[in-house]
Amino acid sequence: MNVYQIMVDKRDGKKLTADQIEYIISGFSKNRIPDYQMAAFLMAVYLKGMDFEETSALTKSMLDSGMRMNFSRIQGAKIDKHSTGGVGDKISLVLAPLVAAAGALVPMISGRSLGHSGGTLDKLESIPGFRTQLSIDEFYQQIERIGVSMIGQTEAIAPADKKIYALRDTTATIESVPLITSSILCKKLAEGIDGLVLDIKVGQGAFMKTVTEARRLAESMIKTAAIHRLPMSVVLTAMDQPLGYAAGNWLEIQEAVSCLHGEGPSDVMEVTFALGAEMLLLAALATNRDEAVEKLSVLVRNGTAFIKFCEMVEAQGGDVDVLHHMQRYPSAKIVHPIIAENSGYVADLNALTVGQAVVRLGGGRQVIEDRIDHKAGVLLLCKRGDRVKSGDRLALLYTDREKVVDEVAALLSHAFTISNIQPENDHLILESITTEM
Amino acid sequence: MNVYQIMVDKRDGKKLTADQIEYIISGFSKNRIPDYQMAAFLMAVYLKGMDFEETSALTKSMLDSGMRMNFSRIQGAKIDKHSTGGVGDKISLVLAPLVAAAGALVPMISGRSLGHSGGTLDKLESIPGFRTQLSIDEFYQQIERIGVSMIGQTEAIAPADKKIYALRDTTATIESVPLITSSILCKKLAEGIDGLVLDIKVGQGAFMKTVTEARRLAESMIKTAAIHRLPMSVVLTAMDQPLGYAAGNWLEIQEAVSCLHGEGPSDVMEVTFALGAEMLLLAALATNRDEAVEKLSVLVRNGTAFIKFCEMVEAQGGDVDVLHHMQRYPSAKIVHPIIAENSGYVADLNALTVGQAVVRLGGGRQVIEDRIDHKAGVLLLCKRGDRVKSGDRLALLYTDREKVVDEVAALLSHAFTISNIQPENDHLILESITTEM
Repeated sequence: MNVYQIMVDKRDGKKLTADQIEYIISGFSKNRIPDYQMAAFLMAVYLKGMDFEETSALTKSMLDSGMRMNFSRIQGAKIDKHSTGGVGDKISLVLAPLVAAAGALVPMISGRSLGHSGGTLDKLESIPGFRTQLSIDEFYQQIERIGVSMIGQTEAIAPADKKIYALRDTTATIESVPLITSSILCKKLAEGIDGLVLDIKVGQGAFMKTVTEARRLAESMIKTAAIHRLPMSVVLTAMDQPLGYAAGNWLEIQEAVSCLHGEGPSDVMEVTFALGAEMLLLAALATNRDEAVEKLSVLVRNGTAFIKFCEMVEAQGGDVDVLHHMQRYPSAKIVHPIIAENSGYVADLNALTVGQAVVRLGGGRQVIEDRIDHKAGVLLLCKRGDRVKSGDRLALLYTDREKVVDEVAALLSHAFTISNIQPENDHLILESITTEM
Repeated sequence: MNVYQIMVDKRDGKKLTADQIEYIISGFSKNRIPDYQMAAFLMAVYLKGMDFEETSALTKSMLDSGMRMNFSRIQGAKIDKHSTGGVGDKISLVLAPLVAAAGALVPMISGRSLGHSGGTLDKLESIPGFRTQLSIDEFYQQIERIGVSMIGQTEAIAPADKKIYALRDTTATIESVPLITSSILCKKLAEGIDGLVLDIKVGQGAFMKTVTEARRLAESMIKTAAIHRLPMSVVLTAMDQPLGYAAGNWLEIQEAVSCLHGEGPSDVMEVTFALGAEMLLLAALATNRDEAVEKLSVLVRNGTAFIKFCEMVEAQGGDVDVLHHMQRYPSAKIVHPIIAENSGYVADLNALTVGQAVVRLGGGRQVIEDRIDHKAGVLLLCKRGDRVKSGDRLALLYTDREKVVDEVAALLSHAFTISNIQPENDHLILESITTEM
């Protein structure tokens, strides 16, 4: 077998065998195949695609490049959730402790912010002292003791994925259904979980701009997960405007805490309950969605979910005190308002623009090496459908970067479209699809 | 401008601007853009193509990466010939001195053998002492004094092409019309010539397997050359069986010398005269093809062409004596016959297989670092259409590699198809196309 022929076959649109895929992935993983050959191969995959068998083989090879966790000695259903990424998406922060409070085990491995998309790890690290790099043993022990732990990718899991992702990121081969599918699934399969809920974001602030594209990814994920015997539910959720009001790491922790206190924005709670219900169903902790949502609501109202969150933060070295006294957190040097120039309805609030504004303010990364200012971000004061008057404050910028304020304020003004016509209500939960196993 | 967007645009099938192409080529040439990004870009070009304006801009950027020769102080039309490569293709060895003898200047820059295709440089270097690496000044001076010089690619000309070609060779992106066009033309434009004859080989021993593919390349070459104001003629010639009887470096020098003595195989002479006529027409040294061919025939018959060849060999340090006394050349340790198992007509003689046999015998390269044994090769004793009897010798293998003889003999036997049915005569010159300037 040789890598050149594999490249030729994919370039010419042929179906690759599992052996061919294993050859190129393990060769690249072990540095026998150079970056440039993998880059050309990835572009060929991007343009020629892969069917479900190929995607499944790719997932397996990437999974096999590293270790698999084994939670079998811990009783209980281990369920994880993954989101394809959006703006203001703090769902994991609320969902993981909430579902753990309901009795499932949630061993969650999350990612970092990149580009306009926020990352759960960076949000958690805005809590002073919070450690996202636990040893595998610490992770096991915390799941056993508390039922939930949220950590970052470890080097031991799917190293091939890490290497391939870095290459995709610089070779315009990110938005490929088989490559996205295998990248997500190999890591989730390595967690040794019993079920996965996938939140595919759809809209102008998401990877997938249309429901059609999102359905294609959903189908690929479900079929590939089924081949690997991982039960899965997929929920398509809207990502046209940011979720909630906060975008930026510490601002989102504040909003997540509000949610856990039962005082969160209705859109964040709607998505949290929709995804949480799927997780409880996969864990067999509820028999239908209504029952599941009711169970979760109670756990928010009676404070159990917030307590679980605090247990997790404490177990991972975070300062729980600041969660009880948010005002003690250092505040950004500059808090700058965005003022409405017209009166009318907020007809559109562009999530992508808000995400880009957060990056400019210091709250995100343009490249993976950028340092993050956890205080920086955007707090929206209105959302789509709200009525505003000329002179009203639409949003607040939080930043220490004096020089960027004017530029970001101008950018963010363009995120709002004010119109005389009241926009129709849009649906947040677009579709749910569950694997038949 | 950024390289990522250029990759996205080509990946999505968009037309690139000349500025975008210049950005990526000069960036890669100056090591600002890494191999892996260029590799993904080349695969996108392979799969999405480029139109003539893009191909022209690509050619210009590659040309601009190095120096341009300037022959303007030397009176006379400078005409070159380029072939897309075949088996037994020793045409340049005969053609360059012949056309120079007719009064044109022939500053020819040639390539090396790779894979089943022979290379003019390696053939010339089988002449003891022959130097293919002259300085630019030596090259100018030899053209002025003798009218012909045949050298290898210099580092100073189109370095971007050299770097890109090496990458294409390992990333399955060789057979792309815009990439082939720009690679050939940038080097030929750098020669500062007044006209170019392109010999596009078509058939099982060539890059282009069908006339349709060859026409596509011809159209791309002609349109791109026209944008760069380079007059050009394209001739499509058959490459199903090897040209002539000799394949292998010194064996081909011997055959070329026979041609220059007027004793060459008819197919080699037919292609030589066809291409030579186009060169004389471009140089305005003949007014029509018949006149041109007559002129060239005379120069062979009266020995002028051979004298010109010897002048060139001597000027470039080669041993002219051995050209007059071929038997003094060291001979291969093993000369092994291929025997016909059946009687009948040679219905097919596969050039690709013969080319591969030469490589195995030591006369070519599998990778660019391989060393070449100039004595090694295949001498055919019959060609397509010839009648053979069982037990006849079909060909002779020349090699020092005792171990490969049986394997190569078996391989080469398969190159011959013996049939009871006499094959139809096939045409050698398939089409000629000339630029209207």
